[in-house]
Amino acid sequence: MSKARLETLSDGVFAIAITLLVLTISAPTDYRDLGAQLIAKWPSLAAYVVSFFVVGVMWLNHHSVFANFARVDRPLYYLNLAVLLTVVLVPYPTGILGEALRRDQGTTVAALAYSGLMAVQSYCWAALWLYASAGRRLLGDSFPEAGRRPATLAFTSGTVLYTLTIGVAFVSAGACLVVHALLALYYAIDPLSRRAQPSE
Amino acid sequence: MSKARLETLSDGVFAIAITLLVLTISAPTDYRDLGAQLIAKWPSLAAYVVSFFVVGVMWLNHHSVFANFARVDRPLYYLNLAVLLTVVLVPYPTGILGEALRRDQGTTVAALAYSGLMAVQSYCWAALWLYASAGRRLLGDSFPEAGRRPATLAFTSGTVLYTLTIGVAFVSAGACLVVHALLALYYAIDPLSRRAQPSE
Amino acid sequence: MSKARLETLSDGVFAIAITLLVLTISAPTDYRDLGAQLIAKWPSLAAYVVSFFVVGVMWLNHHSVFANFARVDRPLYYLNLAVLLTVVLVPYPTGILGEALRRDQGTTVAALAYSGLMAVQSYCWAALWLYASAGRRLLGDSFPEAGRRPATLAFTSGTVLYTLTIGVAFVSAGACLVVHALLALYYAIDPLSRRAQPSE
Amino acid sequence: MSKARLETLSDGVFAIAITLLVLTISAPTDYRDLGAQLIAKWPSLAAYVVSFFVVGVMWLNHHSVFANFARVDRPLYYLNLAVLLTVVLVPYPTGILGEALRRDQGTTVAALAYSGLMAVQSYCWAALWLYASAGRRLLGDSFPEAGRRPATLAFTSGTVLYTLTIGVAFVSAGACLVVHALLALYYAIDPLSRRAQPSE
Repeated sequence: MSKARLETLSDGVFAIAITLLVLTISAPTDYRDLGAQLIAKWPSLAAYVVSFFVVGVMWLNHHSVFANFARVDRPLYYLNLAVLLTVVLVPYPTGILGEALRRDQGTTVAALAYSGLMAVQSYCWAALWLYASAGRRLLGDSFPEAGRRPATLAFTSGTVLYTLTIGVAFVSAGACLVVHALLALYYAIDPLSRRAQPSE
Repeated sequence: MSKARLETLSDGVFAIAITLLVLTISAPTDYRDLGAQLIAKWPSLAAYVVSFFVVGVMWLNHHSVFANFARVDRPLYYLNLAVLLTVVLVPYPTGILGEALRRDQGTTVAALAYSGLMAVQSYCWAALWLYASAGRRLLGDSFPEAGRRPATLAFTSGTVLYTLTIGVAFVSAGACLVVHALLALYYAIDPLSRRAQPSE
Repeated sequence: MSKARLETLSDGVFAIAITLLVLTISAPTDYRDLGAQLIAKWPSLAAYVVSFFVVGVMWLNHHSVFANFARVDRPLYYLNLAVLLTVVLVPYPTGILGEALRRDQGTTVAALAYSGLMAVQSYCWAALWLYASAGRRLLGDSFPEAGRRPATLAFTSGTVLYTLTIGVAFVSAGACLVVHALLALYYAIDPLSRRAQPSE
Repeated sequence: MSKARLETLSDGVFAIAITLLVLTISAPTDYRDLGAQLIAKWPSLAAYVVSFFVVGVMWLNHHSVFANFARVDRPLYYLNLAVLLTVVLVPYPTGILGEALRRDQGTTVAALAYSGLMAVQSYCWAALWLYASAGRRLLGDSFPEAGRRPATLAFTSGTVLYTLTIGVAFVSAGACLVVHALLALYYAIDPLSRRAQPSE
């Protein structure tokens, strides 16, 4: 099992999933009033931007995490496949959330679907990290032992945070989208998660 | 004919085919009753998960098989193209099977289409392996002669197993989906097929 | 301008275009009579198989041609872009041809669109080859001078052959599809075009 | 943060976005009058060709720009992600512009959406370049100091030019599409932007 080829497959899936997000913005149907139709689609555009950012940050973290692995094995391949399964699904609730916000119908259910998928995703990530880092199973020598505990904390706290977004979905679908953007921002700049990376 | 570039093309096709599976879950139409609509789509989600797993396992086996090849030639390229042709088709019966199960209409035909494609896929795989391994045509030195017979047995028995799933389709579409998940699980962990791989 | 990165982009486009072909087979609408509906779609499946084979052969020829280039430059990049533009379009007439044959309506127009695209594609290929090979502009030393003339003949005769398929479209759409399959088969096994390749 | 993997992800997104453009040409609905229907779709084909060319030129410039970087960092990753976010969106206004021109409805709004996206794209590019080149932050030694000013001028003038295309959209949607084709042609052959590249 080559680590390089696994990273290549993952990169391919990330690149395609992020690109398929464009299909989540439904085509206009009435061209006589195109301006109003397009403006009304701003929730779809917002959901597109948030999901693009979320997947982009996740790809970077995927890169950071795998840079610390000295090798990969079959169980890691399947745990990674579970992560990818949730990444590929992202366009689905993204499209629904944007459309529900536009129609102002079913927003709570749509936000629940979005948060639910993100929560499952965080569980898959935590499982992947716990498997790979336990007893330094797949970690390379360049990864400092002191960084293992904070990284594990980051991944497990992620499962809690994303589970809590399910609660936010009940409050407001718009707030839910904002929270997911903020969480992605946190993971984009958080020094804790960066500590888990090799020096750049 | 470069083996690396053939693997890259194949990886690309696998990555795209697995990602297009998200399109097999049809978008909801009625947002006033979104929750019930999404819950009713669970067969589509189940079909998505099974097909994602099936293609993921197949990609890993593709990787394992090609790792044993010292070189590739034109006939292998076309046999691989036949395998990819069936991989690319996977989203089609996946979408139909999920939708048929949801509607509880045409389930037998849908399961037949799904099993039929998987059977054709197993024939393509067997042809690819038989061509490449006969007289060790394309096998590298690192592949032990003792591993050739069990690997050939695994590929040919696969054609029998997948042909039998056509019979399962007549019994029950749901059972058919479960059987395909179990078969993928078998190929994911089966020590026989792993014996055909170079040491990791 | 790196040749490796140009080949990677091209491989990506080929892989995605070939995978998007699955979208050319329209989903069934009536699940109560699913069997009859799927059987009636056989022209779409036939068009899918032919186009998959055509693009697969073309990808192999792309690989062979670029293996002879010592370097690439800007004009070649844009000629290659023109080839890719036609490759990406392939799913469009493929879907139309399959659907026209199923409905038995508009078959001549559909076959004309299919043949027309293939003809334009052959012109782009010929332009790319003539540009790259004239005065051995981009050819590497490993490409024998004796192979240049037959290769040029193969590419220019291709423009004639594919232009003639436009005539076949007027006769019969089904025959047109068969002719394209045969032409792809010819380019898949033709020793002349293989002479233009470096030893495998 | 590996530069090679960032380029690979970007290449993947470019390749997929350019290939998804084929989905912007809507399928015909009436096959009895297929010829007239296909001919009426020429604006969609024109928009497809222009966008394909625009993205193709942009990919080449992406390649040229990144060839000058000695390394990449997190801020550059996110600036690049912003560029990719706009690249992935290209098929959306492309499809709308083609359809609006065909229907002769909503053409101004459609051209505004197209030009607006291209303007945002040019701002992202300028931000990326300014960040990377300021104080030669990420520039490699092979990039001549004398080339920095003209390259910065090219990127900033691009923001002005693309903002002006928003004005052209008010005049005529057809003219707008032509202007975008000409701008892409300019960036395809402009010696100024080429000066910013390392020797080929």
